[in-house]
Amino acid sequence: MSFAPAFDAEFRANLRVLLAWRRDVRRFRCNPLPEGAVERLLELACLAPSVGLSQPWRFVLVNDPSRRAEVRRNFAVCNAEALADQTPERAAQYARLKLAGLDDAPCHIAVFADRETTQGHRLGRYTMSEMIEYSAVAAAHTLWLAARAEGIGMGWVSILDPRTITAILDVPANWKLIGYFCLGFPEAEDDVPVLQRLRWEERRPAASFLLRR
Amino acid sequence: MSFAPAFDAEFRANLRVLLAWRRDVRRFRCNPLPEGAVERLLELACLAPSVGLSQPWRFVLVNDPSRRAEVRRNFAVCNAEALADQTPERAAQYARLKLAGLDDAPCHIAVFADRETTQGHRLGRYTMSEMIEYSAVAAAHTLWLAARAEGIGMGWVSILDPRTITAILDVPANWKLIGYFCLGFPEAEDDVPVLQRLRWEERRPAASFLLRR
Repeated sequence: MSFAPAFDAEFRANLRVLLAWRRDVRRFRCNPLPEGAVERLLELACLAPSVGLSQPWRFVLVNDPSRRAEVRRNFAVCNAEALADQTPERAAQYARLKLAGLDDAPCHIAVFADRETTQGHRLGRYTMSEMIEYSAVAAAHTLWLAARAEGIGMGWVSILDPRTITAILDVPANWKLIGYFCLGFPEAEDDVPVLQRLRWEERRPAASFLLRR
Repeated sequence: MSFAPAFDAEFRANLRVLLAWRRDVRRFRCNPLPEGAVERLLELACLAPSVGLSQPWRFVLVNDPSRRAEVRRNFAVCNAEALADQTPERAAQYARLKLAGLDDAPCHIAVFADRETTQGHRLGRYTMSEMIEYSAVAAAHTLWLAARAEGIGMGWVSILDPRTITAILDVPANWKLIGYFCLGFPEAEDDVPVLQRLRWEERRPAASFLLRR
């Protein structure tokens, strides 16, 4: 048993700034991440909560140019289809959004969830097997916050076909794609979400999401 | 455009401590949370990333004793079934784990994802509709970290039947249960996961989850 740390008001204020400035970064500078940064961030990501301590997250660092090109191609296909799904007015706006930092980001990390892992002995997954995916999401979110604390931006690309990405990256077919992440130093920074700046959507206050029972 | 904050080494060291001490808390003191704490924490949770700025998280603060009792009953049923799923040796160990703080925690919050929300105009969900659930998971994880920074512990209960919980809490049937959370001041604190202390499972190093492609 160790003595629990107490966090002071200054830390809490900074944590709030971190959460507010986390941002989904879409435009990156091309310069690489500092040596050892990825390994350091992934170590922190592994402190995320996981159901039954199953640690089902799997990180794939994608460096091979031909695999990156294939991922980029899959994004282009899916992006065009997603565009067709929007009303004409929204589609024009959507086309102007640069939705992926795939071209510029120096670091690409795909995050998967291994649904078949025996680590954790299936504890806590009996009624909600998706807890495995949720644990990997928590790891991705931790990675995001840890990166931002080092001044590194991250963007979540979800307009991809999971099965195609699994094949491109040559990982087990039963691994579930959680997201494909671009990391790098941001070209510009802002504490207002890009979709809000572009008037795609507004943020709503917490009270509008709260019910009492 | 605002000027981005730079986080210093001291903040990063404290963030690491926060991640390490987040813990899934199972044993709580009965004293209530400070006035306004829940609203303050939920406000921070709403800074989480969400696909297309859809903010699909829905928080249900459960105070009614009869609803709490029904949730407790559902946990007991599901827990017994989960027990039957384990080997005899593990089952005995599992039975000794106090898996829910449902009896003692002063604050209960159910988190749901509203898959039908039109906020965000369906952006980014075309190929991975589960991004809605993942956004709500990020909000729950943010709540967890923000709570810990105030010395408040949180435990994630997943051994519940989602459809039953949706009915008990009288929320729309298409809301998907992400988790049922107990919050309160921890009875004891530790930076080692309870499942590791009980030798249920060991944590593994980040390198064991990393592939290069």
